[in-house]
Amino acid sequence: MKGIRADFSSPVLDFLEQLHLKYAGLNDGEPADYIPELAKADPNWFGICLVTTGGSVYEVGDSQLPFTIQSISKPFVYGLALEDNSRADVLAKIGAEPTGDAFNAISLEPGTGRPRNPMINAGAIAAAGLVAGKTHAGRLQRVIEMFSLYAGREVHVDDTVYHSESETGHRNRAIGHMLRNFNILTEPPDPIVDLYFKQCSISVTCRDLGVMAATLANRGVNPLTGKRAIRGEYVESVLSVMGSCGMYDYAGEWHYRIGMPAKSGVAGGILAVLPGQLGIGVFSPRLDSRGNSVRGIQVCDELSRWGDLHLFNSPPAHRSVIRLKFNGAEVNSTRVRTGAEAQALRETGEGVRVYQLQGNLTFPSTEIVVCDVIASLDGMKFVILDLKRALSLNESSARLFCELLLKLADRGIATLFTYAATAPELRRFCKLKLADRFGDLFHAFEDNNLALEWCEQHLLETRLPEANQNPAAQRADYELFQGLTPEELAVVDALLERHSYAKGDVIVRLGDAARELFIIARGLAAVTVKLASGSEKRLATFGPGLSFGEMAILDNAPRSAFVSAETDLECDILRIADFERLGATHPHIQIVLLRNLAMSLSNRLRKANREFSIFDY
Amino acid sequence: MKGIRADFSSPVLDFLEQLHLKYAGLNDGEPADYIPELAKADPNWFGICLVTTGGSVYEVGDSQLPFTIQSISKPFVYGLALEDNSRADVLAKIGAEPTGDAFNAISLEPGTGRPRNPMINAGAIAAAGLVAGKTHAGRLQRVIEMFSLYAGREVHVDDTVYHSESETGHRNRAIGHMLRNFNILTEPPDPIVDLYFKQCSISVTCRDLGVMAATLANRGVNPLTGKRAIRGEYVESVLSVMGSCGMYDYAGEWHYRIGMPAKSGVAGGILAVLPGQLGIGVFSPRLDSRGNSVRGIQVCDELSRWGDLHLFNSPPAHRSVIRLKFNGAEVNSTRVRTGAEAQALRETGEGVRVYQLQGNLTFPSTEIVVCDVIASLDGMKFVILDLKRALSLNESSARLFCELLLKLADRGIATLFTYAATAPELRRFCKLKLADRFGDLFHAFEDNNLALEWCEQHLLETRLPEANQNPAAQRADYELFQGLTPEELAVVDALLERHSYAKGDVIVRLGDAARELFIIARGLAAVTVKLASGSEKRLATFGPGLSFGEMAILDNAPRSAFVSAETDLECDILRIADFERLGATHPHIQIVLLRNLAMSLSNRLRKANREFSIFDY
Repeated sequence: MKGIRADFSSPVLDFLEQLHLKYAGLNDGEPADYIPELAKADPNWFGICLVTTGGSVYEVGDSQLPFTIQSISKPFVYGLALEDNSRADVLAKIGAEPTGDAFNAISLEPGTGRPRNPMINAGAIAAAGLVAGKTHAGRLQRVIEMFSLYAGREVHVDDTVYHSESETGHRNRAIGHMLRNFNILTEPPDPIVDLYFKQCSISVTCRDLGVMAATLANRGVNPLTGKRAIRGEYVESVLSVMGSCGMYDYAGEWHYRIGMPAKSGVAGGILAVLPGQLGIGVFSPRLDSRGNSVRGIQVCDELSRWGDLHLFNSPPAHRSVIRLKFNGAEVNSTRVRTGAEAQALRETGEGVRVYQLQGNLTFPSTEIVVCDVIASLDGMKFVILDLKRALSLNESSARLFCELLLKLADRGIATLFTYAATAPELRRFCKLKLADRFGDLFHAFEDNNLALEWCEQHLLETRLPEANQNPAAQRADYELFQGLTPEELAVVDALLERHSYAKGDVIVRLGDAARELFIIARGLAAVTVKLASGSEKRLATFGPGLSFGEMAILDNAPRSAFVSAETDLECDILRIADFERLGATHPHIQIVLLRNLAMSLSNRLRKANREFSIFDY
Repeated sequence: MKGIRADFSSPVLDFLEQLHLKYAGLNDGEPADYIPELAKADPNWFGICLVTTGGSVYEVGDSQLPFTIQSISKPFVYGLALEDNSRADVLAKIGAEPTGDAFNAISLEPGTGRPRNPMINAGAIAAAGLVAGKTHAGRLQRVIEMFSLYAGREVHVDDTVYHSESETGHRNRAIGHMLRNFNILTEPPDPIVDLYFKQCSISVTCRDLGVMAATLANRGVNPLTGKRAIRGEYVESVLSVMGSCGMYDYAGEWHYRIGMPAKSGVAGGILAVLPGQLGIGVFSPRLDSRGNSVRGIQVCDELSRWGDLHLFNSPPAHRSVIRLKFNGAEVNSTRVRTGAEAQALRETGEGVRVYQLQGNLTFPSTEIVVCDVIASLDGMKFVILDLKRALSLNESSARLFCELLLKLADRGIATLFTYAATAPELRRFCKLKLADRFGDLFHAFEDNNLALEWCEQHLLETRLPEANQNPAAQRADYELFQGLTPEELAVVDALLERHSYAKGDVIVRLGDAARELFIIARGLAAVTVKLASGSEKRLATFGPGLSFGEMAILDNAPRSAFVSAETDLECDILRIADFERLGATHPHIQIVLLRNLAMSLSNRLRKANREFSIFDY
C-alpha cells in the first residue's frame, strides 16, 4: 500500500490508533433493533478508515469486518438514478430540500407526493425505481456492479439481513404503495421495494466505506483502482443531497461542526467526504436516538478538528497556479546564438512572456492567470502558456483561455500553448469556438524550448533580417578564430576540411572516440541526448560561425551526446591531432583558440547561471 | 483596480455584461411591499459584482446603487455573536438546523424556545442580543464598524428605511418578547429588536456585497483592504449556517443547483461565497414568492454553471504540493568542490532529499508530503523541506511535520526546514511539542543552498575526513597547474605572491579593474552579488586548490562580482601581466593553464546544465 511501511508508521495512522483507543471506551447507545439481524451486532465492533484522493489508505480496528450498508446506499443509488435519467426527470420525482425530520418520516410533498429528498426512505425507494434495467435481476446486478466499482472489490448482498429486512419492512412497503399512488413509482411497487431491501443489505467493510467516500472525493474515480464509478458531473449532486440531508435531523449540526457531506446507516456505518481531498469510513454499531453511530460522530468530529477538514475552512487556494513567470530576455531557447543574435534577443526578448501553470485549472485559478496577463500587456508580443503541470483543465477554464486568446490576437499578440496534450479539453473547446480561425490562432508546441525558439525567430526576423536566412559564415568570422592574425588564419585554414551533411544526418554519436572539432559554415546542428524514457531531448542548436565537439580538445573522453544536422549543413573540421601539433609549431595559435574556447564556455556558464537564478531553487 | 484596463476588458467582465443584458429583460416578481419604503424600489435596478480572493473586482450594471442589506445582515451579526461569546453559549441560544420553513416563521424549538437557526428572524434577533457592548449605541457602533470592515468602506444606517421598518415591525417585536419569555434574550427585548431593525437598514451596494462575500471567502480578511473583519476560525460557522439555512425554504435546491453558501435579503440583494475563491453580489429588487431575488437566483445559477463554481465540484486539489524533488547528488550547494569532493558527493549525495513545497499546507497536502517521504526512506540521511512557496501552513500541517520529524530522528534522519520564516506557526508548534529537544532536532536554514552545504559537509566528514579541516593545498595540487612539468611549476611558482585575509575581508570589488588571478591555498572565499532588493546572494564558495577571478585572463572587463573571505584565508596571486608574458617566454605553460581553465569551466557548465535539467522549464 502506498506510503505504508511495516517499519515506519505514518503519523496519520498513529493518530487514528489514538482515536480508536480513545473512543473504544465510549459505550453510549445500542445497536439498532428494529431489524432483528442488526440487533445481533457486537456493540464493541469499531473500525476507522481514512482514504485520500492520492490513494493512501489508513485503517485501524475492525476495519475489514463486514456489515450491511443500509441507508449509506441511498446517495449511491441516487447517483445511479441521475446517470440513468435526465436530471429534470429525477428532480420531478425526488426533491432536494432537507426536512429536518427523522429518517423514517414519509415526508411527501403535499399535492405531488414527491418525496422531499432522496435521503429519506421514500426518496430512496423512488430512486431505486429510477434505476434502469429490463428485469429486476438486471437492475440489482447494475446496483451491485456500481457498488463494486466504488469499493474496488466485488460486493454482494447479505441474504440473512435481507430476509430479516424484508420480513419486517412493512412501513417501507406502505411507502412504496404511497409512491405508486402518486405516480412517483410507475410500476408495481413491491419489486422496487425489494430492490431497496437488497441494496440496503449489501455487505461492506469500514475500509470499503473509506474507499467509496474517497471515490466521491475524487470526482467519481476510485483512487485505488483508477476506475470510474460515476460520471464526474453527477458527483456534486450526490454530495449536495448528502450535505443537506445525509445525517437526518442532525444534518444542520453535523454540517456546522464537522463540515463534510456524510451519510450514516443503521448498521453503524458513517461515510464522510471532503471533496477533492479524502474520504472517511467509521463503523461502530452503537447508535444514538437519531440513528447515527455514537462513536462515528465523535471520531468524525475529532478528525475534522484535528485535520482542519471543515469544508468551509479552505484557505485561499489557487494563488500558486502560476508556478513561474519569465520573459524571453531572461531565458532563451537552447539554440546557441551568435553575439549579434544574443544581443538582439537581450533587447527584444522581453516581449515574450512565459507562464508555467500548475494544479487544477478552474475558473478561479484561470482568472488569476488572465488577470496577470492583462496587467502585463505593455510590450507583450507573445504569451506562452505552459500546461505541463496542469492536473486538470475544465470547461470554464478553457473558455477563459480561448476568450483571452481572441482578445490578445486583436491586439496582435500571439498565444502559444505548450504541452497542450495534457489538456485535450482546451484544444477541443478552441477548435469549436475559433472555427476556421483555429489554424491561424491556436499555436500548440511540444515544449517551451520549441515555443521560445519560434518566438525568438520572429523577433530576430524583424531585428536582424538576415538572421533567418542562415547565411554562410566566413572563416574569419568563426568565433573560435577571433584574434588570429591573417597569417595565422592561413595556417589554420590549410588544416580545415569542409564536409557536407543532409538534414537528419548523424554527425557525432554518443560514445564515439572524439578526434575532431566542428565549426559550422552553413546550416544548423542539434545536440541531443536520449532520456531514460527513450525520448530524445535537444540540449542545444548551433548555427553558422559556432563550434561543437570542442571538448575533444580538452580531454580524451568519448563523445557525450549525439549531434545531427537540423538542416542541410556544411562544417569545417579541425582534427585534434592537427590542433595538438600547433602547440609545437604555432603555440600562439593554440593559445588564441584555447582562450576563445574558454571565453565561449565562460559566457555560456554565465548565461546558464543567470537563467538558473530565474528558476531559483 | 487590479488587472482592470480601460483598453482591454477581462473576459470575466465581458461575461458579466452578457449576463446582465440577458436577465435585464426578466420581469418576473415584484419588489417587497411589506415594508413600505422597500416598495418604492425601481423594479429594474440590477447590478452584478464578482470579487476574487486575489482582489479582482468585476462589476456591471447598478453595482454602486445603495439599498438596504436586510436579512443579508444576519450571518454577519451571527459571526459577531460568535466572536463575543463562547461557541457553546451561542449554540445554547441559537440552533443550527434548517427548518425548511419560510423566512418569517418563528420556529422556536419546543420546550427550550431556542430558535432553530440564526437565519430566521427569531435566530437573528437572538444573535443581535449576543452582541457585546455596554450601551445600545455602543452595540450599534460595533455592528456598523464590523460591516465597514467587511465592505472596505464606512457604511451607515438608512434612516428612512429604518423608520419604515420600525413602524411596521410588530411581528419581530412579538418574536422579541417570545425570546425574552424563554430567556433566550435576557434583557428587555425592545432595544435589541431595534438594533435588529437598524442592522437590517444598513445601506450597502451590490459591489459591497461582492466584497463582503469575498471577505468570507478569504477566511475573514478583506481582499481589497487586507484588514480582518472576523477571526478566521468563525468563518466556517458563518458559512455553515448560510449553507444550510441561508436561502429560506429554497436552501436545499440552492445548495443542489448552485452549490455556494448564500444569503438573500428582501431589498433584492443576494450574496454568495465560494470558500477560498470568490464572492458574488447581485442586486435586483424583483422577488419570488420565497423572498429571493428572481434575477439574483438566475444570475447565480448561470454563473455557477459557467464557472463550474459548485462547492462539491472540486477537482483533486493538492497533488501539486510538491513543486520539485531532487537529491544532493543531482544538485549541489554553490560551494565549488575539488574533484575528490565532487566525486564523494556524487556517490553519497543521494542521501540528501530536497522537497520544494508550495501552496497551502493543510492536512491533505501535508499527508502527500509525509507519504512521499515515507516511501523514499531507503538511503535517506537528510530531508530538506523548502517552505519558500508555502502560502499558508495550518496547525494540522504543523502537527504532521513535527511528528514526522520526531519519527525520522529516531531513525537517525535529520529534518531541515528552509525559508521557515514563511511559516512561523511551524516553529511555534515544534518548539512547544519538542520542548528541550527543539534545539537539537529543529534545523532551520535561511535558504536551500545553506541547508545543502550543511548536509554536504556532514556527508564529506564521514567520507573524506580531511575535507572539513580546510587543509592547505600544495601548489602542485592546484587545479590550474595540473599537467605542468616540475620545471614549469618552478617558473610559475616564482611568479606567485602569497596574501592573507581575515574572515570578512573584501578581496575583489564589483567594478574593480581585473589585474590578477587568485588561487586559494587555505580557507574559503565567497563570490556574492547584490540583488535589486539590496540583499546579498552568494553565487559560489571556493576552497583550497581552486581559483577565482580567472575571467581576468580572458577579457579586460572589470570585476563582475564581490569576493570576500568566508574564513581566514590565504591566496596565491598571479598577476595578469605576468601570465601574459608567459605567452612569449613559456607558451606551453600558458597553454596548460588555459586548457585547465577551459576544462574547469566546461565541467561547471556541464554541472549547471545537468542541474538545470532537474528544474526542467
